[in-house]
Amino acid sequence: MSTSQTDDHRTPGRYVSSGVEFTRDTNYISTRITRDGRDGFPVEPGRYRLVAARACPWANRAVIVRRLLGLESVLSMGLCGPVHDERSWTFDLDPGGVDPVLGIPRLRDAYLARFPDYSRGITVPAVVEVATGHLVTNDYAQMTLDFSTEWSHLHRPGAPDLYPERHRDEIDEIAQLIFEDVNNGVYRCGFAGSQSAYERAYQRLFDRLDWLEERLAGQRYLVGHTITEADIRLFTTLARFDAVYHGHFKCNRNKLTEMPVLWSYARDLFQTPGFGDTIDFAQIKEHYYVVHTDINPTKIVPSGPELASWLTPHHREQLADRPFGDATPPEPPSQAERVPAENTVPVFGG
Amino acid sequence: MSTSQTDDHRTPGRYVSSGVEFTRDTNYISTRITRDGRDGFPVEPGRYRLVAARACPWANRAVIVRRLLGLESVLSMGLCGPVHDERSWTFDLDPGGVDPVLGIPRLRDAYLARFPDYSRGITVPAVVEVATGHLVTNDYAQMTLDFSTEWSHLHRPGAPDLYPERHRDEIDEIAQLIFEDVNNGVYRCGFAGSQSAYERAYQRLFDRLDWLEERLAGQRYLVGHTITEADIRLFTTLARFDAVYHGHFKCNRNKLTEMPVLWSYARDLFQTPGFGDTIDFAQIKEHYYVVHTDINPTKIVPSGPELASWLTPHHREQLADRPFGDATPPEPPSQAERVPAENTVPVFGG
Repeated sequence: MSTSQTDDHRTPGRYVSSGVEFTRDTNYISTRITRDGRDGFPVEPGRYRLVAARACPWANRAVIVRRLLGLESVLSMGLCGPVHDERSWTFDLDPGGVDPVLGIPRLRDAYLARFPDYSRGITVPAVVEVATGHLVTNDYAQMTLDFSTEWSHLHRPGAPDLYPERHRDEIDEIAQLIFEDVNNGVYRCGFAGSQSAYERAYQRLFDRLDWLEERLAGQRYLVGHTITEADIRLFTTLARFDAVYHGHFKCNRNKLTEMPVLWSYARDLFQTPGFGDTIDFAQIKEHYYVVHTDINPTKIVPSGPELASWLTPHHREQLADRPFGDATPPEPPSQAERVPAENTVPVFGG
Repeated sequence: MSTSQTDDHRTPGRYVSSGVEFTRDTNYISTRITRDGRDGFPVEPGRYRLVAARACPWANRAVIVRRLLGLESVLSMGLCGPVHDERSWTFDLDPGGVDPVLGIPRLRDAYLARFPDYSRGITVPAVVEVATGHLVTNDYAQMTLDFSTEWSHLHRPGAPDLYPERHRDEIDEIAQLIFEDVNNGVYRCGFAGSQSAYERAYQRLFDRLDWLEERLAGQRYLVGHTITEADIRLFTTLARFDAVYHGHFKCNRNKLTEMPVLWSYARDLFQTPGFGDTIDFAQIKEHYYVVHTDINPTKIVPSGPELASWLTPHHREQLADRPFGDATPPEPPSQAERVPAENTVPVFGG
C-alpha cells in the first residue's frame, strides 16, 4: 500500500516524523472478495476493478499476480498516475483525468462512496465494485492470495499456482521476513526520523539481503521449484532498489547490481513474462522523488541509473527449476496495458 | 573552495536557487604568497598556516599537494570540522574549539582580521599569516600551483614536480575541463534549481567521465608519465563520488566502481602515499549530508557505501608509468595529522 493521504499525526507531504522510527499503518479495509461471497462480495467476472499505480511496489504485486493468473479479462484495471495530490491518488493519466470505468477523478471517491467518514490513508492497490463505485478492499497482502485461491476458477488455462497448499507455511514465513526487513525495511531507512532508527533499519535490510543472497545461490526461487507469491513480493522491492531506494532512501551499502545472486535472480524474474512488463521505471522514479518532498524538497528526479543491464543474461536457468513448472507463462500484455517504451528498459518496451 | 557563508542572494543553509542553475562564486582573495613577496607576503618557513577541512574537495587538493611536496614542516595545517555553522567553518575539532596556533574559533575571524567588511563566502582552503592572524588567500586554484612553483626551494628532498613546465599548457587545459564538468559539475547536478539544469549538468558530467575513462585506459596518469596537479584535481572528486555525489547530488548514471578504468585509476591514486591518507570518509559524508539541509532536510547520514574495495588491487602499475618518476613518495603523515582509523577504510587507517 502506497499511501497518499497521511495519518492523523502527520501533515500532508510529510513522511518523516522527527526523532522516531517510521511506522506503517497496517490497518486495512479487510473485506474479502471470495467465491462464497461471505463478506457480501462474491467473485464474479466483470464485477470489480483493480485500481493500481505503476509506481507503487505494493500495487505492483497485484498487477503481476493478475497478469500471471490471466485475470485481465475478468478483473479490469485502472491506473493512477505516479504523482498524487495530498488527498488521493488520482486518475491523471486518463483522458479528462477520470477513470473511464469508474468515472471518478480520485481514488478517494471510491473510499468515500463506501465509508463517507473515511479518514485513513488512500492506498493502492484497491479493488472497487464497478456498479456501486464502492471500494471493497485495500488489503494488499490478502488481495493477491485471494486472487490465487478464491478466483482460481477464473484463472487462464495454464495459470501457475502461486500459493500452493503444500508450501503455504514456508511462503508465509518468508513473506513475513521479507515484509519486515525488505519491503517495509527500505521505507524504514528512508523515512527514519533519527540517525539511530535509520542505522537499525539499514542493518536489518542488508542482513536480510545477505541472507537472501545465500538462500538463492543454490535455488532459482524462494520456495519450492517454481515462482510463488514469495518471489513476487521480493521482486517488487528489488525492481525499485537501484532506481530509488539506493539513493532516495539511503539503502546504499551497495547497489542490487553489486549482489551477484540477487541481481541474477532479479533479472531472471524481470525477464519472465508478467514481471518486467509491469515495471515503469519512469513512473517509479517520478513517484518517489516528487511525492516525498520532506526528503527531496527540490523534487528533481535523477536521470540514472542506467537500466539496460536488466536485460543481460542471468544464467539462472542452469539451476533446473522452471519458472512456472508445468504451467505456462502469460501472453504479452494487451496494447492498452503496455508500459510505454520510453518508460522502461530500452528495447524491452519497443 | 567549500563555502560556509552563503552569497548575498541566498539565505543561510540554502544552496539551491529555484529555477536556475547553480553558479559558483569564483571571486577569491587573489593575494599570492610568492618567493619575491610582490604582494607583501613572501614565502617563508613557519610564517603561514594552511586552514583546510578534510570534508572539502577543494581543500583536499591543498592537503595532498602539501603532503606530496613535503611542506609540512614549513607550512603548518589547521583543520576545521566537517559541519560548519551558517557563518563560518569552525575549529570545533580542536580542544576548546579554538585553533591552537591561530587562537580563533572560526575561520571567519581571519577573514575579518584582514577585511573587516568581508561579506563573501568563508571558504577553505585558506592560508593565514600566523603573526597577524590575517587571511592571505583563499584562491584554491592558484594556491596549489604556488606550492609547486613558488615554494620549491622548501620542498622535501625527492619531492615530485607536480606542475612541470613542459606540460603546463596541457595540465591547465585538462584541469579546466575537469573543473567545469567534474569538480564543479557534481555541484551543478546537486544544487540544480530545475530539472533541466540538473539534466544538462548530469549529461556533461558523464560525458566527461566517459572521455576520461577512455583517456586513462592506456596511460596511468592524465598528463605525461607521472602524477601531476591534474590528477590531484580529478582525484578529490572521484574520492567523494560514491560516498556522496552518487546519491546526495544525484550523479547516479553509475557508481565510480562501475567505470573500470576510472575506478582502477582512483584506487591507484588512493593507495599512493599522500592521497588516500588524506581522505576522511566519515567527515566527507557528514559534511555534505548535514550541511546541505535544503537537499537533505533530515540530516541523516547514509551508512554506505562499503569502502573496503578502495584497497583492492588496481593493476595500473602494468602501465609502466611511475607515480613520482625519479622522485620519491612522501613519508607517512605525522601522528597528529593522521586520519582517525574509524573514519577511513578498514585496515588502511589502522
